[in-house]
Amino acid sequence: MVRWEPGTRERLQAAAMDLYTSRGYERTTAADIAQAVGLTERTFFRHFADKREVLFGGQELLEKALLDGVAAAAPDASPFETVRSALTALAPHFSDERRPFSRQRQAIVEENPALRERELLKAAGLATSMTAALRTRGVPEVTARLAAQSGVTVFGVAFGVWVAEGEERLFQDIQREVWNELVALAADEA
Amino acid sequence: MVRWEPGTRERLQAAAMDLYTSRGYERTTAADIAQAVGLTERTFFRHFADKREVLFGGQELLEKALLDGVAAAAPDASPFETVRSALTALAPHFSDERRPFSRQRQAIVEENPALRERELLKAAGLATSMTAALRTRGVPEVTARLAAQSGVTVFGVAFGVWVAEGEERLFQDIQREVWNELVALAADEA
Repeated sequence: MVRWEPGTRERLQAAAMDLYTSRGYERTTAADIAQAVGLTERTFFRHFADKREVLFGGQELLEKALLDGVAAAAPDASPFETVRSALTALAPHFSDERRPFSRQRQAIVEENPALRERELLKAAGLATSMTAALRTRGVPEVTARLAAQSGVTVFGVAFGVWVAEGEERLFQDIQREVWNELVALAADEA
Repeated sequence: MVRWEPGTRERLQAAAMDLYTSRGYERTTAADIAQAVGLTERTFFRHFADKREVLFGGQELLEKALLDGVAAAAPDASPFETVRSALTALAPHFSDERRPFSRQRQAIVEENPALRERELLKAAGLATSMTAALRTRGVPEVTARLAAQSGVTVFGVAFGVWVAEGEERLFQDIQREVWNELVALAADEA
């Protein structure tokens, strides 16, 4: 019989983050993580496919939130309005409660080139999914790519501000400000 | 005495591209490329650090063009105007003469996940350099990141259109149209 204690995944994740920070991502194994919380390597692999998934496991949730946000936009919403709706749907994933985890994660990813490449690939994946969702709403290809990519840019810049040491504003407020700034910068050119 | 025939680099590059296309990037070695044009592996390595550099060797030139373009903008140019100047400086690198090479290269990169990650990292590097250049002009961090990233978005979307099969418009014209479209999309939101 397999024991599935509530909170096991969270304990493994917290231990992994601490080891990635103190010892370095490369020098930490799945066995080290499991051992740190008194579990077996096998238990680790029941919760995570590999040690990278501890950092990137939330990808599907973010993608789902973005696509739900696109779907929630009014049928006659402009491409940028639709993307804004998608970004709004992302915000609950970046609560103040989550900020310490996100901060720690960011420091780990930034320090490791392979993880950084993975992060870029993930962002590119979000842009591709959002482009496809806009296309199904009848938005032309080039417009869809520009709007989706701009959304990912705003999200990325807002995220960078939100995880900075000492930052206390809410993610949704930062993201709204960054969005408004992009719109103002571009409008200034029109 | 080292023979340095004019055009050796170009011959190696052309042979590499053909092998990457016909045999696949992973299954092609530096020795294969050299042999295809009757040269030694050692000669290949006098021209390219490795087989990946055949595809990514132009990075510094693009970065230099972008930074020259930033420097060429009027001192009182807005952040978006400055980025537009940078993009304009990129255009001569994407001449019609170069399009067949770019098309072939694009197909190779798209097919290989590792090369695709490398391409994303390269684009991120261009955005980082342009952000730094805007910062030295006194542009605030968030504004600089938004403007630089928007420039890279426009460049990427324009490049994708330009290399598409059957596309005949000039790169500079496509890029200008894509830029105007981004500005119009955002202005619509303001």
